[in-house]
Amino acid sequence: MRKVFQAELHQIGEGLIEISALVGEAITKASTAFAAADLQTAQEVIAADARIDFLQNDLDERAIDVLALQGPVASDLRMIVGSLRMSASLERMGDLARHIAQLTRLRFPNQVIPVSLTSTFAELARLDIVIAEKVTELLDSRDLELVGDIAAAKSQINKLHKSVFSTMAAPDWNETAATTVDVTLASRYFERFGDHGVSVARKVSYLVTGEWQPEDFLTV
Amino acid sequence: MRKVFQAELHQIGEGLIEISALVGEAITKASTAFAAADLQTAQEVIAADARIDFLQNDLDERAIDVLALQGPVASDLRMIVGSLRMSASLERMGDLARHIAQLTRLRFPNQVIPVSLTSTFAELARLDIVIAEKVTELLDSRDLELVGDIAAAKSQINKLHKSVFSTMAAPDWNETAATTVDVTLASRYFERFGDHGVSVARKVSYLVTGEWQPEDFLTV
Repeated sequence: MRKVFQAELHQIGEGLIEISALVGEAITKASTAFAAADLQTAQEVIAADARIDFLQNDLDERAIDVLALQGPVASDLRMIVGSLRMSASLERMGDLARHIAQLTRLRFPNQVIPVSLTSTFAELARLDIVIAEKVTELLDSRDLELVGDIAAAKSQINKLHKSVFSTMAAPDWNETAATTVDVTLASRYFERFGDHGVSVARKVSYLVTGEWQPEDFLTV
Repeated sequence: MRKVFQAELHQIGEGLIEISALVGEAITKASTAFAAADLQTAQEVIAADARIDFLQNDLDERAIDVLALQGPVASDLRMIVGSLRMSASLERMGDLARHIAQLTRLRFPNQVIPVSLTSTFAELARLDIVIAEKVTELLDSRDLELVGDIAAAKSQINKLHKSVFSTMAAPDWNETAATTVDVTLASRYFERFGDHGVSVARKVSYLVTGEWQPEDFLTV
């Protein structure tokens, strides 16, 4: 019984890693599509999101089955409840990658953002990809040094996100309102993606250490 | 033992209702502050959000204790897992009410939105308040007729949210980029709030009927 239980716990952990890897693929492709106004790649990201949703539901059902059949306690119980929460964050990250792809599709064949913001958004995308990859690695290795790396990347994202808003508020911003709307949404999508990544990292940290880090501890 | 267990389940249910009522208060006051550029009320909403966060953590801890100590199965287990998910959605609704209050504070003593959009945002706010109140009522009564009402309100919100974007894309939109950014964010906050309300309603519906409604069933 105990052996079956450990195998089930292990499978839930593997399931999270699989979803996280798909989320990493989604944000990588969404960023490529976004940067290059690449409709084909955007469509692929949009289509692939259903798989992430499916895997999340499947993992949640398995987690609930384990709760029902094994009645886990202590750290095993926290691990399963933590998995339910992390799967929700990962699913949301998949949605945000899809939103970025949808913006790309909406404005195709044009770019979503003006040339003046290309490098800022390339950096936002790069940092989100770093976060997604490190989250996958963290779920696999539980190496808590990665938590600090993820928080540091998010801190850089916050600065870039603010700088986008400053750029739009400056007197020399001459873009159309439609572009302003798109830039606002795109910047927020990249920022939210990173935020959910931090949220997953905090949960892993909690499961490993048993201590809940206050939100500002990781986002300074 | 069984009696204690039922009392604990009941308390978790009451805890959700309490959080939902506070979320209703938050969106009502945030909407008032937003409409009237009322700094004092905005500050109250921002300060009160910590209480919602605290109650969510407290409820989640109690739910995990019940899982550990009672090892519930079947519908009781689903109810507890459902509570963990609903508390997360309610907490997020509280955050969005706070974001609306923060925008109000940021632009004080000015209005966040231009006069031309006053009535649209008043309607968005009214619908979010309807959703929050009906979610609280639904958590209490489990009357599934309310789920349809909530979905209908969200459907109206979606139309208004789209109309805000059309307004900003129209040639006669002459507002500053800063205002365009604010309107984009505010409209999205009101829309996301309603979306999380629908999400809570779907979970209640699932707990009562045992059947998961596809997302589009409720949002037509």
